Amino acid sequence: MTQIGVFMKVLFKNAKILRLDFDEGLFDGDVVVNGNLIEFVGPKAPEDNYDKIIDVKGNILMPGFVDTHCHTAMTLLRGLKDDAQLNEWLFDNIIPTEAKLKPSDVYWGQKLGILEYLAAGITTIEEGYFYNEEIVKAMKESKLRGRIGFGPTTRDVGMSNMDYLKSQYEMIGDSDLIKPVCFIHAIYTTDDKSIMECVDFTAKHNIPRSIHLSETLKEVGDCTVEHNQKTPPQYLEDLGFFDRPALCYHCVHMDKDDLQILADYDASVSTCPSSNIKLASGIAPIYAMQNKGINVTIGTDGVASNNSLDMFKEMFLVATLSKVNIYNAEVVKAKEVLAMATINGAKALGFNSGEIKVGKLADIILIDINKPHFYPHSNLLSHLVYSAKSSDVYLTMVNGEVLYHNGEFLNENKELIYKKANEIRERLTK
Amino acid sequence: MTQIGVFMKVLFKNAKILRLDFDEGLFDGDVVVNGNLIEFVGPKAPEDNYDKIIDVKGNILMPGFVDTHCHTAMTLLRGLKDDAQLNEWLFDNIIPTEAKLKPSDVYWGQKLGILEYLAAGITTIEEGYFYNEEIVKAMKESKLRGRIGFGPTTRDVGMSNMDYLKSQYEMIGDSDLIKPVCFIHAIYTTDDKSIMECVDFTAKHNIPRSIHLSETLKEVGDCTVEHNQKTPPQYLEDLGFFDRPALCYHCVHMDKDDLQILADYDASVSTCPSSNIKLASGIAPIYAMQNKGINVTIGTDGVASNNSLDMFKEMFLVATLSKVNIYNAEVVKAKEVLAMATINGAKALGFNSGEIKVGKLADIILIDINKPHFYPHSNLLSHLVYSAKSSDVYLTMVNGEVLYHNGEFLNENKELIYKKANEIRERLTK
Repeated sequence: MTQIGVFMKVLFKNAKILRLDFDEGLFDGDVVVNGNLIEFVGPKAPEDNYDKIIDVKGNILMPGFVDTHCHTAMTLLRGLKDDAQLNEWLFDNIIPTEAKLKPSDVYWGQKLGILEYLAAGITTIEEGYFYNEEIVKAMKESKLRGRIGFGPTTRDVGMSNMDYLKSQYEMIGDSDLIKPVCFIHAIYTTDDKSIMECVDFTAKHNIPRSIHLSETLKEVGDCTVEHNQKTPPQYLEDLGFFDRPALCYHCVHMDKDDLQILADYDASVSTCPSSNIKLASGIAPIYAMQNKGINVTIGTDGVASNNSLDMFKEMFLVATLSKVNIYNAEVVKAKEVLAMATINGAKALGFNSGEIKVGKLADIILIDINKPHFYPHSNLLSHLVYSAKSSDVYLTMVNGEVLYHNGEFLNENKELIYKKANEIRERLTK
Repeated sequence: MTQIGVFMKVLFKNAKILRLDFDEGLFDGDVVVNGNLIEFVGPKAPEDNYDKIIDVKGNILMPGFVDTHCHTAMTLLRGLKDDAQLNEWLFDNIIPTEAKLKPSDVYWGQKLGILEYLAAGITTIEEGYFYNEEIVKAMKESKLRGRIGFGPTTRDVGMSNMDYLKSQYEMIGDSDLIKPVCFIHAIYTTDDKSIMECVDFTAKHNIPRSIHLSETLKEVGDCTVEHNQKTPPQYLEDLGFFDRPALCYHCVHMDKDDLQILADYDASVSTCPSSNIKLASGIAPIYAMQNKGINVTIGTDGVASNNSLDMFKEMFLVATLSKVNIYNAEVVKAKEVLAMATINGAKALGFNSGEIKVGKLADIILIDINKPHFYPHSNLLSHLVYSAKSSDVYLTMVNGEVLYHNGEFLNENKELIYKKANEIRERLTK
């Protein structure tokens, strides 16, 4: 008997395996993981000396969720300010409190968020915050997969912006688990010069780009006033932002010309519905994005705005808000939403994951279907989007390693993290 | 040591007690239940011979949820037809399948729904379905609290409509646990004569009334065409429907004159946001209802439309959809939504419950806050609405009796119910 939680050859047997490329969506079978890769997917795995056999007992085995928009350490600010518009919330409440954050606070906030991700079956994130050294340290300890954003900073870092970008890029590095992305916060918090420097730096080093884009009507309106009637996507296009693969967070207020710009380039969208409705920003035009052929992915955003890290909640919202937004219940179906939350996200972030297929990175979660809200066991794919809760996840594997099982975190001391989070929050709001 | 799950004197100690009438929302203290009533609420309970002491260990103790719009046995139809407009969904899919339901199917469907309610902290429901004998049997076995709807039927029941109403009313009876309500499905499925008979019968017997009202634009448009330009509330007002206490389900498409009619009478609203957005019906004008002084409550609707029985999901949606619907993040705050889901619902249904106060019926749930999404332990009232999941409920007491604890149902055989639900669904869709 070998220990769970280290690289080895693992057999998952008797699973209902989610395969979005199959008409039925799910099929009964086994999955074998060898090291950090999926080695076998089929009705019956071969006899072998497995280090670990996990009997899935007819439950669902699916790819872990790829959460494409996160500010993880904002877990520390959960519920700090509810029921406020984005601008009041951000500039009068969040940013002044963030100014009190010490580097080690971000480490503990990242750790708290990682617990929440793992318990909810989120195996990959796109991170955009600050004190990246602390973020990378927490991510490497936890072994969560992620793309870490680096970009211009307004803090005094004792070097030029270009040197800072270079040092951050090199510090983050590039591996199966951690990749870098250039993260420009938003056009309304970054000047032309800084955006141009990022564009130049990332063009030179072949680095993808991310940005908050057209999140509110105010952002769009201000942009057209300040930038010669250009909408945010038009403004960024002119700066060369879309010449490299780009991921655009939110994209709530985009007309067909704006969407066409995204479609013309290698640009994905990260839609964050719970954040958008809680901050009263609006409802994103997902069906129109799909019709333009844009790669749509899903993000939770930070918990200060939404207020939890739960891709089940977001999936339900993407499907249902997209319907009510155009009074058409037939659009944005369960299967499409599951793709957004897994394979589309992996594609946008450049990870070879998001599907249960041979050769893919072994990011796997198990869903307990023996609960009232999963019965009858009839249309389980629909249940995954419209009935399931993140608490139905009972095992989370990242990169071939089990990191969460039945409420326990195998690499993390949850009691210590909870204690630290409470202490930091008390200090921040004193 | 006495058994859990029977009437007795129970002490809940070391709780964070939800009290919406306190500014802070929560206070540390004890609660004593004697029989089916709350006998003490305060910082420290007196010494006494308690039959059972439950150490809440600093977790949240709050009133159980009152779910004011249910078609419980539709659990059997979960995921039967997604991604369709209400009319296609209802008339081409749901109703033809319901025609195959046998009375005993409804019993098992009710039992499955009751498991889901109890696990999610729902202690009281308003039921509207058919084969009421089976529903009452399942409710009495389970000891869930509920108001059971009876009304005109299109089935051949071998007696006049008035005699049928009388026999149903007498069969349901009136007790602390089960009360009757006259349930008229909707104006588009019931003719004038049947509505008038219900109005007459309920006026004579002092019975409250419920109806699906202004759920879709089609319903409103058809009504104005068929009934001399009257909107559904105007049409019902003229029939005398609002002369007795009324509960109106959905109320998505109402202008200020429609809302004024509800405000002028003793009429409550049951808003069902997940159902309304999944069926693309629309977003209800909750903030306008509040401004009219209307008693707003929350319902899940049946799972064939939404697709789960989860008041946490509904609370999040009421708060956030109300904000995005009018581009104002400041309205419909966490505390108001908690009131809708508890005390407002109890008031609408006529039960002396929905609050943790001395003399109130002992419908109590415990919420586990030792999970990542509840940290930091800072603004727990906000966390209840914006972060919590129904799976955070770990104990559900109805009428002084513990019916659910840590995944186990004390009066129910869940494995048998699951098996029956699967068998029935297979038969229905064969």
